[in-house]
Amino acid sequence: MEKLENTIKAIRGINKEIMIKTQSRLDNLTKPKGSLGRLEELAILISGIQVKENPCLDKKIIFTLAADHGVSDEGVSAFPKEVTAQMVYNFISGGAGINVLSKHVGAKVIVVDMGVACDLQVVCGGNFKDKKINHGTKNLLKEPDMTRDEAVACSEAGIEVFNEENLGGIDIVGVGEMGISNTTASSAITSVITANPVEDVTGRGTGIDNKALNHKIDVINGAIEINNPDPCDAIDVLAKVGGFEIGGLAGVILTAASNRVPVVIDGFISAAAALIAYSLNPLVKDYMIAAHSSVERGHKIILDYIGIKPLFDFGFRLGEGTGAALAMGIAQASINILSDMATFESASVSRKEAI
Amino acid sequence: MEKLENTIKAIRGINKEIMIKTQSRLDNLTKPKGSLGRLEELAILISGIQVKENPCLDKKIIFTLAADHGVSDEGVSAFPKEVTAQMVYNFISGGAGINVLSKHVGAKVIVVDMGVACDLQVVCGGNFKDKKINHGTKNLLKEPDMTRDEAVACSEAGIEVFNEENLGGIDIVGVGEMGISNTTASSAITSVITANPVEDVTGRGTGIDNKALNHKIDVINGAIEINNPDPCDAIDVLAKVGGFEIGGLAGVILTAASNRVPVVIDGFISAAAALIAYSLNPLVKDYMIAAHSSVERGHKIILDYIGIKPLFDFGFRLGEGTGAALAMGIAQASINILSDMATFESASVSRKEAI
Repeated sequence: MEKLENTIKAIRGINKEIMIKTQSRLDNLTKPKGSLGRLEELAILISGIQVKENPCLDKKIIFTLAADHGVSDEGVSAFPKEVTAQMVYNFISGGAGINVLSKHVGAKVIVVDMGVACDLQVVCGGNFKDKKINHGTKNLLKEPDMTRDEAVACSEAGIEVFNEENLGGIDIVGVGEMGISNTTASSAITSVITANPVEDVTGRGTGIDNKALNHKIDVINGAIEINNPDPCDAIDVLAKVGGFEIGGLAGVILTAASNRVPVVIDGFISAAAALIAYSLNPLVKDYMIAAHSSVERGHKIILDYIGIKPLFDFGFRLGEGTGAALAMGIAQASINILSDMATFESASVSRKEAI
Repeated sequence: MEKLENTIKAIRGINKEIMIKTQSRLDNLTKPKGSLGRLEELAILISGIQVKENPCLDKKIIFTLAADHGVSDEGVSAFPKEVTAQMVYNFISGGAGINVLSKHVGAKVIVVDMGVACDLQVVCGGNFKDKKINHGTKNLLKEPDMTRDEAVACSEAGIEVFNEENLGGIDIVGVGEMGISNTTASSAITSVITANPVEDVTGRGTGIDNKALNHKIDVINGAIEINNPDPCDAIDVLAKVGGFEIGGLAGVILTAASNRVPVVIDGFISAAAALIAYSLNPLVKDYMIAAHSSVERGHKIILDYIGIKPLFDFGFRLGEGTGAALAMGIAQASINILSDMATFESASVSRKEAI
């Protein structure tokens, strides 16, 4: 618990003075003021997070955390549970969506077993880490997903994962996940913490039909009733209706903020982890870049609750960190604008007339 | 006129059979069907445009066409007229927003003088082309912007610009522009062709205040009344209230389509050029990728009129092709997904259960 508490306490506000300087610099570049909209906002934010007048995003890491969920037994997903492990192998061998999109933006993918149900036949090292807390969570419809100790342990595993990789330096981090049935856990978290009805925050995940969707809503309502998670205690929510990968991501997000590293939030499940992190320390909000608005209806509710605006809406519902990867490319573009554009003076371009 | 007519006639429909094959390939990749949303749509579209099962976007070109507008004399812009030429020098020396964002996505910028008011002190070659039709247009509040011959000539110059660069091959093209006061011309074109009131399609351009905006609207209404452009004759609209860079871009767009090259439409002015091209041959629509939704209110009206959906909304209002450049990066990502992801079979991942 100490590691988690220390990380939560270590988060400071972002640097507003640097942000004002960055705004001035942007206003001197050869373009109408503010005409690059959100790219300019991103550059300003990143300079305030890194406390650097010349921010750098060279070292990009996507953490893709995987775990299984006992609630898979209730038939809440369109895919069988073994797909979690199969996809971890796919991440490691480089064939998944997140591998392709990370390569496209120059990011490294770190795959972490946070609690896959089976024992993976993989040697640690390279792009894989083993932080398995348990062989999947329990079935939240019958009992808490995990013990409180496990909830702290998975969050602290996320802290370790970040810190280990940060030995080589991290300039920007993206969070993604894999875990069959983890939209069920995410909807439960969202409903409890944002106080919205389950049916308003529950979607089709990997693609279930109406009947299965209604069943999923019933399962989540049942889980909340049986476990009665305390909305004011994020660790309690994580333990009762969360997931090992979600706790791990919350740990990564908090650690990024405590290290002044911008953290790109991917889809619904990553946003649920962001919601846990935000509940533990609201200062973490300023370190977050919301990549996109996914198809899952609960996603927008979380982003609105935290108060962060997604960059794009491409109708994604894959997870893994895929949207975060694309958003990292946009973030890099924003920093390139700041560092590489000519000023009105250097390019001898006339300024705006008084009109 | 023959060159323009032949280009318009050469446009064929995109290949639906290849698109169905691409859809099947995407459905076999290790992700829930359709879960990469618009990336999948883009990959399908590009395969249909290029008629290739393995589309390639290696050679990316942004054409940034520049020209002046006589209507600048009416005080419709926040920047003085000489900025057009100054920015052309900035494009050539690599200091503008479009240079930075093109480099970010691996695109080459070709800068074209379509009708800058002064004689530029630049040697052709490298990334610059001189296709000057005239030293800026006339003042559309007093007379037609240009003669009909000039309207055809600037469109055909756009055809030449594409064809010259295409000698080295072009896989995807983006269109952008520079021309102080060219949102005035674009609003006029939009109002005439889409039959919307001028006040509904006119915005603040580079950043004018309310008084100047009202004046701009009056100027456009006056120009339409005086010149009476025929909404059914796009060349007449271009001649009377258009611009040399807008005609040139229409030529580029038509030529891209006739060569089965996807063309990324940037902001409001590029969309006005797309509207001219679409009026000349509606088949061109299927070759267009709408990059973004800009701050200019007329932009969305054009995209809705043509029936294309922008990829993102970053609050851009810079032009130059900046949004198109970022969208090219997204298009590249979509092709990488298609070509580099593992299939369910190759990665031994279980398929969706019947649920």
